[in-house]
Amino acid sequence: MEHVKDSLRDINKDFESRARLGIMSVLMVEDGVDFTFLKETLQLTDGNLASHLRALEEAGYLRIEKQFVGRKPNTRYTATTAGREAFQSHLDALEKLILGNKTD
Amino acid sequence: MEHVKDSLRDINKDFESRARLGIMSVLMVEDGVDFTFLKETLQLTDGNLASHLRALEEAGYLRIEKQFVGRKPNTRYTATTAGREAFQSHLDALEKLILGNKTD
Repeated sequence: MEHVKDSLRDINKDFESRARLGIMSVLMVEDGVDFTFLKETLQLTDGNLASHLRALEEAGYLRIEKQFVGRKPNTRYTATTAGREAFQSHLDALEKLILGNKTD
Repeated sequence: MEHVKDSLRDINKDFESRARLGIMSVLMVEDGVDFTFLKETLQLTDGNLASHLRALEEAGYLRIEKQFVGRKPNTRYTATTAGREAFQSHLDALEKLILGNKTD
């Protein structure tokens, strides 16, 4: 049962939910995505997406950049280096758990 | 971004939390584990573990068997077939997400 103990230790509660797994997965491959793109890719409501983005920003895992496109305000989201590293550790922990389930 | 959409669809909210990932991982390899074993392996409090076990039982993912060992009551937890199948699908979805993060 050691693999379970080991991998659980590195599972990060900040990334536990389906929505946050999705947000970080998108931000691992795309820089500066906008709200609408995230919303459509992840099929979340505005309120739900906004609250997860805020929590991830507060944890220092993503950066919010506000700019204008013409006269329209536009907000873009990018993973920080800390966010990339933390999410990668989380994925590694999940992978260890999955592998443990296969070989035990 | 299709891999994110695809894998999120099969991520099961019932297994999202660290505690439930741990419980199901243990039950995938061991039948009839008792409360103390789960508690020590997963390092959870009694209340927290009990509430996750109850939720997983209500979802039909595990079976609770009460018996006596001598005069002492003893409760044992075993994954149901539905629980094993659902958890395996969840792990497969997580694996897809992890692989997508590696190759994109």
